Amino acid sequence: MPATLRDVAERAQVSMRTVSNVVSGYTHVSEKMRKRVLEVIDELDYRPNPVARSLRTGRTGLLALVVPEIDVPYFSALARDVINAAAAFGYRVMVDQTGHDHDQERELLTGADRTMLFDGILFSPLVTKAELLEMSSPTRMPIVLLGEHEFDGRYDHVAIDNVRAAHDAVAHLIASGRTRIAAIGAQPLEEYATPQQRTAGYESALSEAGIDIDPRLAKPAAHYSRADGYRAAAELLAQSRRPDAIFCFSDLLAMGAMRAIFDAGLSIPEDVAIIGVDDIEEGRYSRPSLSTVSLDTAFIAEQAIARVTARIDEPELPPREVVAPHALVVRESTAH
Amino acid sequence: MPATLRDVAERAQVSMRTVSNVVSGYTHVSEKMRKRVLEVIDELDYRPNPVARSLRTGRTGLLALVVPEIDVPYFSALARDVINAAAAFGYRVMVDQTGHDHDQERELLTGADRTMLFDGILFSPLVTKAELLEMSSPTRMPIVLLGEHEFDGRYDHVAIDNVRAAHDAVAHLIASGRTRIAAIGAQPLEEYATPQQRTAGYESALSEAGIDIDPRLAKPAAHYSRADGYRAAAELLAQSRRPDAIFCFSDLLAMGAMRAIFDAGLSIPEDVAIIGVDDIEEGRYSRPSLSTVSLDTAFIAEQAIARVTARIDEPELPPREVVAPHALVVRESTAH
Repeated sequence: MPATLRDVAERAQVSMRTVSNVVSGYTHVSEKMRKRVLEVIDELDYRPNPVARSLRTGRTGLLALVVPEIDVPYFSALARDVINAAAAFGYRVMVDQTGHDHDQERELLTGADRTMLFDGILFSPLVTKAELLEMSSPTRMPIVLLGEHEFDGRYDHVAIDNVRAAHDAVAHLIASGRTRIAAIGAQPLEEYATPQQRTAGYESALSEAGIDIDPRLAKPAAHYSRADGYRAAAELLAQSRRPDAIFCFSDLLAMGAMRAIFDAGLSIPEDVAIIGVDDIEEGRYSRPSLSTVSLDTAFIAEQAIARVTARIDEPELPPREVVAPHALVVRESTAH
Repeated sequence: MPATLRDVAERAQVSMRTVSNVVSGYTHVSEKMRKRVLEVIDELDYRPNPVARSLRTGRTGLLALVVPEIDVPYFSALARDVINAAAAFGYRVMVDQTGHDHDQERELLTGADRTMLFDGILFSPLVTKAELLEMSSPTRMPIVLLGEHEFDGRYDHVAIDNVRAAHDAVAHLIASGRTRIAAIGAQPLEEYATPQQRTAGYESALSEAGIDIDPRLAKPAAHYSRADGYRAAAELLAQSRRPDAIFCFSDLLAMGAMRAIFDAGLSIPEDVAIIGVDDIEEGRYSRPSLSTVSLDTAFIAEQAIARVTARIDEPELPPREVVAPHALVVRESTAH
């Protein structure tokens, strides 16, 4: 029979409210009282019940961050920043990964997986816009979507301007004198927003500069991984007229592509310039260091935490889209 | 007033047991019944209570993985493998980071943070052996310690043979003709097991080869980060007699050190050979690719999940230590 709050209160000879205050970490409990209660909690092995706490306070103090793959550097950096931003609001974050499992994502969004564990969810999904719209009844759990899906008006959403970010990267390559500019990261299926938007930015920058769009220079990547970047770059370099620059839709793709360029006996940036998106730390130490479009994960994390905590307090808030800034970072891989 | 299981049962005109079966995902409920219950659950916005489930079944189906820093590639790879290994046992894993916060770690281990959220915890702590021993009453929560702490007999423990791993790395450098072999990763304070054990392996390999131990060649690193690796390598290269090889206690340190070597105008491996520990994916694509001692995170994850699930079923199991294998991986950074 597990010990209850009442057991602790009786043994410590304090009110149940005092025990509750100690458990919740409220500061308006004297240090002496706090110590006595904690001793009894230890003695009875009392485990505060987060759901009971939730019923009293309406809060568990826990948020979930759900990402497709936890070992992708962009997502692990985002997780670090979300955990830090949440701490400032008194929340603790647990990180979950869906592993590209659309069913699991759909369950999360439609609330089939609803539990009382979390006060809110920050969700960086892979599901497509069509799938989002298909969902007839979004869960009532406060959710903030992260990433580059189009804003559909039903969820809070923190995103970057993907079209502009891609445009800026390609415009930089053009300004440094490149004319045969390849892209790695297009998707064979037109279902994901991110590759579509980055392809649009890539093509608009080329068009503005009067450069013809050559479909042979746009290579798909099933995952934004080093392996897929390597494979796509190797294919590009084997073509009769090879590119003089590559825009990779992620830094991780660029890391694989750089290695493929070296393995082909070519130099970066002399033979082929290369630029990514994300600004992962790895790109600051690689040789050459990687030019990139920096996404501000700390800003994204702060905004997402601000939105989800606001919605926890005020469930009827109208959903809002926040656009996070991006910045071109020029390093050795595109230096003149 | 949140809806209860009873509310759902009454509205759906089924027994509470049927609602409970639907919520638990048991299959012996007719599809028609299941659909009716789910509709009412939606209608009433009923959120099943995982703690109530826990009181009925003794399980929440949730495990926690606690690591110091989620954005260190070794830990994010470990998290990926733990999530996959747990899925095979029907468990879901939430990842938490302590951010080098000893107080938070101590709370976890002593159970001050005890909740009924998790059936068990996999814990990769930074706390020292002395701190572990200080804890008078370990929590009754099933815990498996990961990493290289000495086995203290009170917790299940999955570790690698750190002394041997370091010895193998340094013996490889000696076999390739290096004699002035530096080490990056020693700790200024002698409180952590990992740097102590790796230092012991480094020194034993040198001694066996009849090479004098030169304390100027052992550089501390406060964190096992690229930045600390860069800084330590730059210091080593600025010394009057520079090393001809560096053993880094982690691949991430090695990534920083490699960049420092290039920035000093030197070649790898011609001027300075370099080897790390961990086998993170980054080291397979870097230029040069990084020799390393590969730690089998998939094996560590599987063993840890097997131990924690065994302990959940059988709380009185005697704690056991499992030693995970390691393997020398020779790549370009130490090639002849």
